[in-house]
Amino acid sequence: MVLFYSDYLEGCIPEILKELNDSNFCQTPGYGKDDFCEEARNLIKSRCASPDADVHFLVGGTQTNATVIASILRPHQGVVCAATGHIAVHETGAIEHSAHKVLTVPSVNGKLCADDLSKLMHLHYDQASPEHEVQPAMVYISYSTELGTLYSKKELQDIKAECCKWGMPLFIDGARLGYGLASKESDITIEELSALADVFYIGGTKQGALFGEAVVINNPALKKDFRYYIKQNGGLLAKGRLLGIQFKTLFTDDLYFKYAKHAVDLACKLSDAFKAKGYEMFAESSTNQIFPILPKAKASALAQQFGFEKWCDIDADHMAVRFCTSWATRTEDIDSLIANL
Amino acid sequence: MVLFYSDYLEGCIPEILKELNDSNFCQTPGYGKDDFCEEARNLIKSRCASPDADVHFLVGGTQTNATVIASILRPHQGVVCAATGHIAVHETGAIEHSAHKVLTVPSVNGKLCADDLSKLMHLHYDQASPEHEVQPAMVYISYSTELGTLYSKKELQDIKAECCKWGMPLFIDGARLGYGLASKESDITIEELSALADVFYIGGTKQGALFGEAVVINNPALKKDFRYYIKQNGGLLAKGRLLGIQFKTLFTDDLYFKYAKHAVDLACKLSDAFKAKGYEMFAESSTNQIFPILPKAKASALAQQFGFEKWCDIDADHMAVRFCTSWATRTEDIDSLIANL
Amino acid sequence: MVLFYSDYLEGCIPEILKELNDSNFCQTPGYGKDDFCEEARNLIKSRCASPDADVHFLVGGTQTNATVIASILRPHQGVVCAATGHIAVHETGAIEHSAHKVLTVPSVNGKLCADDLSKLMHLHYDQASPEHEVQPAMVYISYSTELGTLYSKKELQDIKAECCKWGMPLFIDGARLGYGLASKESDITIEELSALADVFYIGGTKQGALFGEAVVINNPALKKDFRYYIKQNGGLLAKGRLLGIQFKTLFTDDLYFKYAKHAVDLACKLSDAFKAKGYEMFAESSTNQIFPILPKAKASALAQQFGFEKWCDIDADHMAVRFCTSWATRTEDIDSLIANL
Amino acid sequence: MVLFYSDYLEGCIPEILKELNDSNFCQTPGYGKDDFCEEARNLIKSRCASPDADVHFLVGGTQTNATVIASILRPHQGVVCAATGHIAVHETGAIEHSAHKVLTVPSVNGKLCADDLSKLMHLHYDQASPEHEVQPAMVYISYSTELGTLYSKKELQDIKAECCKWGMPLFIDGARLGYGLASKESDITIEELSALADVFYIGGTKQGALFGEAVVINNPALKKDFRYYIKQNGGLLAKGRLLGIQFKTLFTDDLYFKYAKHAVDLACKLSDAFKAKGYEMFAESSTNQIFPILPKAKASALAQQFGFEKWCDIDADHMAVRFCTSWATRTEDIDSLIANL
Repeated sequence: MVLFYSDYLEGCIPEILKELNDSNFCQTPGYGKDDFCEEARNLIKSRCASPDADVHFLVGGTQTNATVIASILRPHQGVVCAATGHIAVHETGAIEHSAHKVLTVPSVNGKLCADDLSKLMHLHYDQASPEHEVQPAMVYISYSTELGTLYSKKELQDIKAECCKWGMPLFIDGARLGYGLASKESDITIEELSALADVFYIGGTKQGALFGEAVVINNPALKKDFRYYIKQNGGLLAKGRLLGIQFKTLFTDDLYFKYAKHAVDLACKLSDAFKAKGYEMFAESSTNQIFPILPKAKASALAQQFGFEKWCDIDADHMAVRFCTSWATRTEDIDSLIANL
Repeated sequence: MVLFYSDYLEGCIPEILKELNDSNFCQTPGYGKDDFCEEARNLIKSRCASPDADVHFLVGGTQTNATVIASILRPHQGVVCAATGHIAVHETGAIEHSAHKVLTVPSVNGKLCADDLSKLMHLHYDQASPEHEVQPAMVYISYSTELGTLYSKKELQDIKAECCKWGMPLFIDGARLGYGLASKESDITIEELSALADVFYIGGTKQGALFGEAVVINNPALKKDFRYYIKQNGGLLAKGRLLGIQFKTLFTDDLYFKYAKHAVDLACKLSDAFKAKGYEMFAESSTNQIFPILPKAKASALAQQFGFEKWCDIDADHMAVRFCTSWATRTEDIDSLIANL
Repeated sequence: MVLFYSDYLEGCIPEILKELNDSNFCQTPGYGKDDFCEEARNLIKSRCASPDADVHFLVGGTQTNATVIASILRPHQGVVCAATGHIAVHETGAIEHSAHKVLTVPSVNGKLCADDLSKLMHLHYDQASPEHEVQPAMVYISYSTELGTLYSKKELQDIKAECCKWGMPLFIDGARLGYGLASKESDITIEELSALADVFYIGGTKQGALFGEAVVINNPALKKDFRYYIKQNGGLLAKGRLLGIQFKTLFTDDLYFKYAKHAVDLACKLSDAFKAKGYEMFAESSTNQIFPILPKAKASALAQQFGFEKWCDIDADHMAVRFCTSWATRTEDIDSLIANL
Repeated sequence: MVLFYSDYLEGCIPEILKELNDSNFCQTPGYGKDDFCEEARNLIKSRCASPDADVHFLVGGTQTNATVIASILRPHQGVVCAATGHIAVHETGAIEHSAHKVLTVPSVNGKLCADDLSKLMHLHYDQASPEHEVQPAMVYISYSTELGTLYSKKELQDIKAECCKWGMPLFIDGARLGYGLASKESDITIEELSALADVFYIGGTKQGALFGEAVVINNPALKKDFRYYIKQNGGLLAKGRLLGIQFKTLFTDDLYFKYAKHAVDLACKLSDAFKAKGYEMFAESSTNQIFPILPKAKASALAQQFGFEKWCDIDADHMAVRFCTSWATRTEDIDSLIANL
């Protein structure tokens, strides 16, 4: 069996493993105050052309989302996202657990539209007594999205403009940031993305690290006391060096992007193969997740040899499924899968 | 410089590192549903003689404490602990962040006394309108404590009896459980401790893992839906296998306890040396943390060669300091430190 | 100007005012432990044919909803309601403030359907890893609804059956309970409604009291420690007698229902007049709130003499508006309004 | 039996009752947007010589404390108060329910000392990693205190100076503000107190209103969106006019202070009588609450005719008790009580 369930099926890229081995007996202070973390922070700031950013390392995506959002919102405020946003549907209410409402707008191919955001804001503020409703106060989007889709630079700029109009920070969940930026469809660089985001994070867990997410805070108003938030939310890893070592490695020789490109290229190859066979796609993804719609019989047959995830039923006879590639996916396994279509 | 700041200065025990290397390319399902985790759960249940327990793996201590406590308490209830309890003073209000009050009783050598617990319970319930106060509803203790001290079996039994009297679960924070059980002073086994605790955890982070805490839930009423709580609190590691691999290793060949004994033996040696030189101790620890009281000049001199933590001022000329040993501490470094006293 | 903005424009029914005057210098214990409250509790239990219920008095609706829901849910659980539910849209996230997600299903004429509830439950539980989502764990409906509409007895029974199937309590917001039960369309009694609800409340604020909501808890599992929840949520009125006096009065001589009928009769008269003039209704209400759709010019003209609320835009030329009647509405004012149509 | 249990045993001062009667059929908009509220706000701002303040009305003390504190603190921050502070011990964890820790300093005769505050702040900030602890970020004091005692102007200025030094708002709980200011011991005016407080409230519930607390926000940074917080915390009374009517009346002809003086004078008379009989006092109160220490036999005898509250045991034979006077206390009842000593 070869598994395509997700992009976190294996351990980590060999370069990280080597660094972990090499550094194992080195003594360092805890909680991210070590030199590995400092070096990783500098590499990231440099790569993002964001020299004044604050960079922090957390362990996982749900934790990072909850921490960042709790650090920004006041109790009466909510975060706006697409109905398919990870924080809205797949984090067991971690945002509500820190007492904030997630305000959703319709998802268009996995994305939030600036126009829908504008409508929501007007609905809130164009009433005599807005204080009876949760105040929308920040925007959350994912790049790439939960459906593997991508915002164009223009779409991001429009969302950012809308945010600015209402004084709202823009937060970009980059759990799969590398896969997004490595896509042929992407028309934006990490430097440009960083310039648009008040805060965003660079996902490690799904991009070749054992675990870890690097939060980049560009908006100075959002920097204060962030370490308190990390600690309160259980994200201040005692052996913080592990995060430093991993991100230092990922941002050395641009490994982060090279491995992402490997995964995306294989996903494209697979996607093209599905399309060539006449299968439709549930979402127009150009990143490392693809969502072909299969006859259920065909899905069952494939599942004898390959692991993949059922996404949702389409009709009585068809379902959408998800195949994920990663840094660890082997070309021969993709070829074998294609041969089986 | 040799550092004794804490027990999380290095990476992990070599046996774990080897397993991580060996398993790196193995494909596993995420979120703790892999075979490594299953094997680790079985080893722990067996070692604790708690075959019916549920075992879950989380990443760090603050996260584990917040998750367990949130899973037990109702909104109007609080957790009782010693004034020196980690949850009371050193987790940035993570318990309050999940909306619960930490109710403290005086700390006696780092410990909570059954008598003080009894008094607190009577104060609450022996009033006409207890509903104006937070209801004490569970007890949190640490083994070993934040001051490196240990409860005797009798003390634990008394606390447990008091808990039973009021229908309160007993939760034992075992971030340094192994160091406690490995102490010569300890008169309890892990099997006996597990039998007393409604829920407890076995610390990995400070005991030779890269990270990780294994929660053992013995009380059937506390088992339901625990994975929801882990996820909501950001503790459901995507690559859960990492936790499985580590705990499987720690509980193979009793490595967990062997390494703990190594650390405790060296700490005792150091403690004896301090005492032989006439230094008093801030706390009567017999585990891997020791707290000598030093003249400030002496402390400054020692700090030229050895890293240790200032604990608190005693008077104008003296301070208590903390030395920690760990699985990684070398005998020659302890000898060199002793030579410098 | 005569105002029809809401049903809380005036003070209270004269009978309550008289009782407040008569009792003013009487000394009573605080926090609901007085005889007035005891008498009111007994009257309510008797009227609801729920002798074993616990009855508590709170001050307002948002507070009551937040308190009841917080008393029922565990942290990882959410409350299911129609998308138009008051808790979903009009309480500034009070439910999220106590850390719970509000899970919405489509609103059908202001109502939640048993079928949609069933679908939601299956979606949650028919997946391999439900713990990544908030667990739906109770149902909130309003009787009458936010759109003035009513559930039939059959609809309520179907919802209740679905709740029982999944072990979920049913909570009925009765801020406008009397108006609902007094409607000609209603096919249920308060006794029957109480038998269906695990917990519900009888609204005072919008039904002739100065303020106050009477919570009736039928499910024994939900009774424990409820006074703690009230106090914690700021709802334990020091002069609790005020609530006792008001509900005692409302449930003497069935005043609660007599005044409700008065309001509903006038609303029906007004509704009939609108329909007779050819206006369509935004919602099919048979209670004290009606929602005619008016040409904007007509609305402006009416607004010269009568106060009413804009509900929402329908198209460029039309809007839905809301007229509310209450215990205090005078027949001559309704006649004058009708004359102006 | 004459009751001295508390200052909320009766309804309200006759002047308020008259206004409620007179206004009962008047139609007003809801939620505090009526003219009564506007007039009350202006009277309060004028009386406090705080023309730029924002004034809001809430229903009860616990609700007000929770709302104000939630509006000020960030998630990682706590509120500092004396160990006897109402928020620390008598509000069922309402502050923790909104996710904030209450950080206590020793209570000195019911009061917080500037020196203890200074020590707490230094302990927090004079460490290398303060982010492992809750950040103290505002100060809560009561005037008069829970023990009926008063801060001198100098003590208040010292606390304020310490607050300013650390950039922390000072919040004064004035549930019994009038009784404090009416005391002969008081050396401060309401204008001066308002000038010192970033935010404070004027208690109605315990000072002759049926219910209600008037929050005065002086610090411009704390004004934004306060109505959202009130609504979210269940404090936005639908018939807000009731609060306007009551505070308008209390602040007409200085009734608030006249009635307070009446209560305080009677309490002093009673206190003097206890002292003349040789009884010691548990706290040095000069306001409307007094705390004599009585032999238990004496207390039992008195309790045959007079209602009062046991405060705490002093020794096997003695207990401290509390007598409260209020606007409604009659001179003849005090005389009769004194005759019984």
